Amino acid sequence: MVRVHDVCAPAAPSAVAARDLTPLPLADVTLDAAHELGAWQSLNRDHTLPHVIERLETSGVLDNLRRIPGESDAPYRGFNFADSDLHKTLEAIAWEAARVPGDQPWEAFTRDATALLARAQREDGYLDSHVQGHPDQEPWRDMRWGHELYVLGHLIQAAIARERATGADDLMDVARRFADLAVTEFGPASTRADGYCGHPEIETALVELFRHTGERAYLRTALAMIDRRGTGALGTGPFESAYHQDHTPVRESREATGHAVRQLYLNAGVADAAAETDDAELIDVLAAQWESAHGAKAYVTGGMGARHKDESFGDPFELPPDRAYAETCASIASFQWDWRMLLATGDGRHADAMERALYNGIASSTSVDGRRFFYSNPLQLRTGHDGTSEYSPSERLDWFACACCPPNLARLVSSLGAYVATGTEIAARLHLYGAGEIRIGATTLTVTTDYPWDGRVDIAVDGPLESLALRIPAWARGATLEVDGRGDDAVAGSDGYARVALGGHAEHAGPRRITLTLPMPVDLLDPHPRVDAVRGCVALRRGPVVFCLEQADLPGGVALEDVRLDPSVAPRVGPAVASLRAGVTLHAQAVVRPAVGLPIATALPRASRTPAPSGMLPGRIALRAIPYARWANRGGGAMRVWIPVDEEGSAT
Amino acid sequence: MVRVHDVCAPAAPSAVAARDLTPLPLADVTLDAAHELGAWQSLNRDHTLPHVIERLETSGVLDNLRRIPGESDAPYRGFNFADSDLHKTLEAIAWEAARVPGDQPWEAFTRDATALLARAQREDGYLDSHVQGHPDQEPWRDMRWGHELYVLGHLIQAAIARERATGADDLMDVARRFADLAVTEFGPASTRADGYCGHPEIETALVELFRHTGERAYLRTALAMIDRRGTGALGTGPFESAYHQDHTPVRESREATGHAVRQLYLNAGVADAAAETDDAELIDVLAAQWESAHGAKAYVTGGMGARHKDESFGDPFELPPDRAYAETCASIASFQWDWRMLLATGDGRHADAMERALYNGIASSTSVDGRRFFYSNPLQLRTGHDGTSEYSPSERLDWFACACCPPNLARLVSSLGAYVATGTEIAARLHLYGAGEIRIGATTLTVTTDYPWDGRVDIAVDGPLESLALRIPAWARGATLEVDGRGDDAVAGSDGYARVALGGHAEHAGPRRITLTLPMPVDLLDPHPRVDAVRGCVALRRGPVVFCLEQADLPGGVALEDVRLDPSVAPRVGPAVASLRAGVTLHAQAVVRPAVGLPIATALPRASRTPAPSGMLPGRIALRAIPYARWANRGGGAMRVWIPVDEEGSAT
Repeated sequence: MVRVHDVCAPAAPSAVAARDLTPLPLADVTLDAAHELGAWQSLNRDHTLPHVIERLETSGVLDNLRRIPGESDAPYRGFNFADSDLHKTLEAIAWEAARVPGDQPWEAFTRDATALLARAQREDGYLDSHVQGHPDQEPWRDMRWGHELYVLGHLIQAAIARERATGADDLMDVARRFADLAVTEFGPASTRADGYCGHPEIETALVELFRHTGERAYLRTALAMIDRRGTGALGTGPFESAYHQDHTPVRESREATGHAVRQLYLNAGVADAAAETDDAELIDVLAAQWESAHGAKAYVTGGMGARHKDESFGDPFELPPDRAYAETCASIASFQWDWRMLLATGDGRHADAMERALYNGIASSTSVDGRRFFYSNPLQLRTGHDGTSEYSPSERLDWFACACCPPNLARLVSSLGAYVATGTEIAARLHLYGAGEIRIGATTLTVTTDYPWDGRVDIAVDGPLESLALRIPAWARGATLEVDGRGDDAVAGSDGYARVALGGHAEHAGPRRITLTLPMPVDLLDPHPRVDAVRGCVALRRGPVVFCLEQADLPGGVALEDVRLDPSVAPRVGPAVASLRAGVTLHAQAVVRPAVGLPIATALPRASRTPAPSGMLPGRIALRAIPYARWANRGGGAMRVWIPVDEEGSAT
Repeated sequence: MVRVHDVCAPAAPSAVAARDLTPLPLADVTLDAAHELGAWQSLNRDHTLPHVIERLETSGVLDNLRRIPGESDAPYRGFNFADSDLHKTLEAIAWEAARVPGDQPWEAFTRDATALLARAQREDGYLDSHVQGHPDQEPWRDMRWGHELYVLGHLIQAAIARERATGADDLMDVARRFADLAVTEFGPASTRADGYCGHPEIETALVELFRHTGERAYLRTALAMIDRRGTGALGTGPFESAYHQDHTPVRESREATGHAVRQLYLNAGVADAAAETDDAELIDVLAAQWESAHGAKAYVTGGMGARHKDESFGDPFELPPDRAYAETCASIASFQWDWRMLLATGDGRHADAMERALYNGIASSTSVDGRRFFYSNPLQLRTGHDGTSEYSPSERLDWFACACCPPNLARLVSSLGAYVATGTEIAARLHLYGAGEIRIGATTLTVTTDYPWDGRVDIAVDGPLESLALRIPAWARGATLEVDGRGDDAVAGSDGYARVALGGHAEHAGPRRITLTLPMPVDLLDPHPRVDAVRGCVALRRGPVVFCLEQADLPGGVALEDVRLDPSVAPRVGPAVASLRAGVTLHAQAVVRPAVGLPIATALPRASRTPAPSGMLPGRIALRAIPYARWANRGGGAMRVWIPVDEEGSAT
């Protein structure tokens, strides 16, 4: 995760853009807990984070570390990267300290955990409880699967967060000792052909450590790792080279492929490295990666990674809704990569993509109580689904054998404020619309809105800011902008931002008042014609929020699979449902076509199309759709995002 | 595989049916090498089988065994069930000996391999080169993954085939020593809760060994294994209980689920056991399994097992064409299970299912040169497909790390004659129509046909047979039957067979002449409405053969993904293509709708539907469709079975 102070954006399109693309300190953004983003942060602090911290103990993560200095005789538990669960949690705690001033409820936990890490750390700085805890293993022997640099990457990110948030350098001491060892082993001078990690993550962390410390060795080491990768030197095991992002040199890797999370973490690190070195070749590769990922391999929810098998991207336009893997960590990684692309290019489509993932593919991972999670985020669950796998359960689970997602969520949500806006004293941009307060130099922006449930965003600008750019999402047609009572169409530049010049209003007393109105009709979305898996279906979206149908909202006796949307009747907005944390629901019309009495076969001659047996005639029903992110909070029934369109009822 | 002499069918519906459901000795059926089934057998003998035998050497299977008596110092290679590759090959060789009289080209190979097996076999009868070849392993310790009983099952089947075909008992001696050890360890008296194999196969083999030897201990051991299974006693490892068919007791397991090949092999064994014990409860469970598998989990090609992940069945109606796993061995297992169901019930839908799998999902596995194979058999390959995985390559491969499929094909094709007909002196049935000669007691049936490319089947009956039942496939509408020149509609009974009484024609000199005509229009098939993955598409089928489109048959510049079938123009039959071993091709009309110039997105607002950019207007083209089984013999381009229907061109 890019930290908020120190990112440079040398590739930004212009001097003004560069000025208005400077990240803000986390403490300078406060999101209102009474509205969507702030409420999510409260849920995260009050429920998700305590749950995650508790699980660090019960899942064995802390004991794995205690074993090293002889403080536990429990056997090692979990995958070999379990240490990273702790590191991600420490990062989340640090952001919470920056976000919520005053007494820090988890400071003692962090100090204890940091001390434990220090006790477990070897003399030479090495720190990986899995390798250290297994006498038959030794450091850096298994670059393909060892995950040691991945674990280090998360440790570095946690240490940076802690130092930035609290000034405490205890965790940083531990992290730098390990990082310096990695620089010695894998820096530019290293001749190890396999001197890079089978799970990218270290790259983005090392670049950020360079930003944080000014020590160029970290940047050079990240660059060396990026340039070594893709020769196949990691070898193969249960998985092929593409799984480990080792199939093609990074500079030639233009298609998003292989293990989705690895590809996306790598892209984030490459974007960091490219930004710091102004490397046009890498930026060009990333642009191609982005078109591949978003143009042919992304779900309407922003989820990525279509395949359960090897957790991989899949072929272009291979986007099954039922078997969508769409791992939570992939959506988070996609969000983080787009943030870096946004900073590097200033192109608002990256903020659009962040928004899409945030409200859909990321939000869907967490239950309304904040304590249960999806690892994968399918867009359809069938009647009769076998929910026994933790990778395709019928309802969210409270933990996982591979628990990468919950602490990843915790650190993302705790740092959400960092992604809302960028800028400097003179010029700023708003990327995500959330009610709250943003301090930029001597200016305070007070944002009042019920976004994403309502498209009106009121912004009070109090201070010397001269230019404010407001993102006009690609989904918004007919947006309008009112400045101090004077209205106009909101005309976005080619970068997707409408710019408000504030300097000419010096006669006006008090804060400037801006009202951005993003109309939010209900959009019916068609799949791209090459997405075979949902042909003949539409998805409902309003603003950035994708909706779904759930069995729980259907009349008794109607199976979700038999519902056909009537697209000739425009869906309309229905009331909020507080228990689902849904600010809006939708109402639509449908025809029920019971698939009963058909032969025992999955394919039928056209000639055999017959009306349903008597008593099972088609009937019209009213549908309620809820935000996709809120499904499976009322038991484990069928769900679908893509709704078949009734052929006969269609007016198109 | 049920061997042909000795199967009893106690559950057959009537005395006549029981008589006409008796399997025939393999040597009594000769298929004409100039027509489809016989030609496939020739290809198998001349190319597939020699290729497989060669690979037994080069893949290490034989060396694995030679290591045990110290005749090789090569390391063990392959999965822990690699011995079964040899066993299946020995079975195929044996059936070839029965099928083609005279000098046996592989008799020396069989004798040598049998002698090697005897030298490797332990004093107590145990014989598994993986366990014996690893000092840290011991017999029967890992029932979940050990595959020892699976390997034994294939050894038993090979030994039975060899003894039946040639009378030689050398392999049977080896097999029975191992089988007797298994009876001691896992017979009814055993108290081992985990006394069954994580990969079913032994069950069907033991029942057949009982039929072959008359020794009831084998039957009782099979029954004991079936009744123990499903308690979870095998435990779990990388896979869940359902993968190992250990999630539910067999008598309660009514849904086809978990690992497809394991489920289907298990069902075959259960069908054998049920037939031998007249167990109505098991037959009822199998009927439910069949409706689950064929009603909601079978591809139009007969392929089963939708998921790559864990090679499993998937949810009802979850049938993606692109990610269809449809393992070759699953189609073979399905064929073998349906054969047993046919013998047990006399219901022709089981023969229909066998035929569907045979000409489509099984046939697709093998290249026209007989030396390359698909492990999985998808129904769609996309432009831009990543074919690097052996489980989803762009073209057939000549071998596999897990090489279960090629030798399984060899043994199936060599024994095809066994599945064509059943009967006794008085009454017989024809199940599969292939040109050739069938001897039933003193009667000879001479079948003349170009089936499956032509629906006319001429049968000359020479001998005292009194009743001949002819299967009328469910796809055949308007079938007619002519007996000695007198024609009539072919009226099938509820079991799907039309019966010809031959006894009343005693005045007639020479053979009776029967002509069955099965009309073969081109059928347009719709998916079942719950199969979401191919909504808005049709499949082309003619007779039992499913067709597909291949990129190789499209005009330059037209992407297969842009082709939309015009269903208002009836497809017609085109010429054969000898190089593809395609007796028929089809011609259809299509509209090309280029998906170019669309936004970079996989979902698009309905409002953004615009005509293609100028120069890329929709155009009409003529399509050629080839038999699905023959795809990927002209390079690795895009392919699809389910073809999107043009919305505007549709007349429906």
